[in-house]
Amino acid sequence: MIEPIGKIVSPYKEKFGIPRQPQLVSAVKARVEIMTTVCAPESFEGLEKFNFIWLLCLFHQATNKSSKVRPPRLGGNKKMGVFATRSPYRPNPISLSLVKLCEIEHDTQGRRTVLHVEGIDLVNLTPVFDIKPYISNYDTPWEQANDGWLEQGKPQSLLVEWSDLALKQIQELSHKKTDLDLIENVLKWDPRPAYHASKQDNEERDYHCILDCFDIRFNVKSAQVIILEVKLTNR
Amino acid sequence: MIEPIGKIVSPYKEKFGIPRQPQLVSAVKARVEIMTTVCAPESFEGLEKFNFIWLLCLFHQATNKSSKVRPPRLGGNKKMGVFATRSPYRPNPISLSLVKLCEIEHDTQGRRTVLHVEGIDLVNLTPVFDIKPYISNYDTPWEQANDGWLEQGKPQSLLVEWSDLALKQIQELSHKKTDLDLIENVLKWDPRPAYHASKQDNEERDYHCILDCFDIRFNVKSAQVIILEVKLTNR
Repeated sequence: MIEPIGKIVSPYKEKFGIPRQPQLVSAVKARVEIMTTVCAPESFEGLEKFNFIWLLCLFHQATNKSSKVRPPRLGGNKKMGVFATRSPYRPNPISLSLVKLCEIEHDTQGRRTVLHVEGIDLVNLTPVFDIKPYISNYDTPWEQANDGWLEQGKPQSLLVEWSDLALKQIQELSHKKTDLDLIENVLKWDPRPAYHASKQDNEERDYHCILDCFDIRFNVKSAQVIILEVKLTNR
Repeated sequence: MIEPIGKIVSPYKEKFGIPRQPQLVSAVKARVEIMTTVCAPESFEGLEKFNFIWLLCLFHQATNKSSKVRPPRLGGNKKMGVFATRSPYRPNPISLSLVKLCEIEHDTQGRRTVLHVEGIDLVNLTPVFDIKPYISNYDTPWEQANDGWLEQGKPQSLLVEWSDLALKQIQELSHKKTDLDLIENVLKWDPRPAYHASKQDNEERDYHCILDCFDIRFNVKSAQVIILEVKLTNR
């Protein structure tokens, strides 16, 4: 009964690296592609007047379900009921993401409606269930909202530094400042698994992260990310 | 794959009467009942720390789908693409409602976890898919959000007046101020279908509305709701 109507096209080619707070990387651009065979283009009339929208998607990579999960924000070593988190491993793996709507394109040749959005936190090819306008009157708490247990673990960003090699490589591979920004903005929120980030002995270890067409090798030492190498990938 | 995990128990026994802006009737109390056979009680650990939550439910009464709908806010005579609205008649009939979480009760005898919530806009027995904490950092626009086409149609509340008969009846039927508040708060937002509300010749017409155990007869004359009669109903 509930069936995907389209998909996300995002620079996050793998779960690893996706920022856990979407709007911290609000400049990341992505596309929401909806098949016109399923939803006529007229279904979107009036949506262009909104600048923020909700995306309800399928957490398609969440194959396990669990009643308790280890939120990254708590260092990955404390368990919490799944409904107290935004974890993908929930009974019904539906995601909820607020994104900025930049443009609606009707690609008649490709038989799809394409929403150009910013601030996405979803992996490439995520199936889409629904799109709703953000309406402040409906979607804002009418009393002061607390942040539950998240108040304990406000994330701190890292300093990002490029090695000489990596800087030379990215300058050869791309002339777009947005590519540089994407890499820096994602890495500064420490994409390592929380249980790695909380252990100092992982400081000698190198990590890889795929962003858009880039394979990035980096390590983290005392609140600093060092980008070691950037290569093209066709993943 | 996506299956209900429980249901809503709300005073809205029928779609007619449900306020179109949930938080306008923020005091309306309801229950979210989740079966422990599907979700273990520990799935909720930590949720009690949050005071606002999202409910993702199935619009189970929306049997039709439509690419264009007539939003009540526009008087019911102007069409809009379904994705530009929060209408139930969407390709995937999933609702999104922000509610205030008051208490979590573990009803071991009834084999269910019961969330006591306020500010619901869902009809009684709505199937529930998911519960998520409201997290301001994720769920607040990072730039000024506009309200799209809704800016044109800000709703105006009506004055509520009780007839002598209705007042006598409600005083005999209930001693709870919350019952009186529920009726007044729902009726002041004019629960009539928008195409009725926009026509003056419906002023002579009586309407019925079922709220909780009350069957309420009322009419609307020049921005005033007159409650004519209140009876008990066992619907």
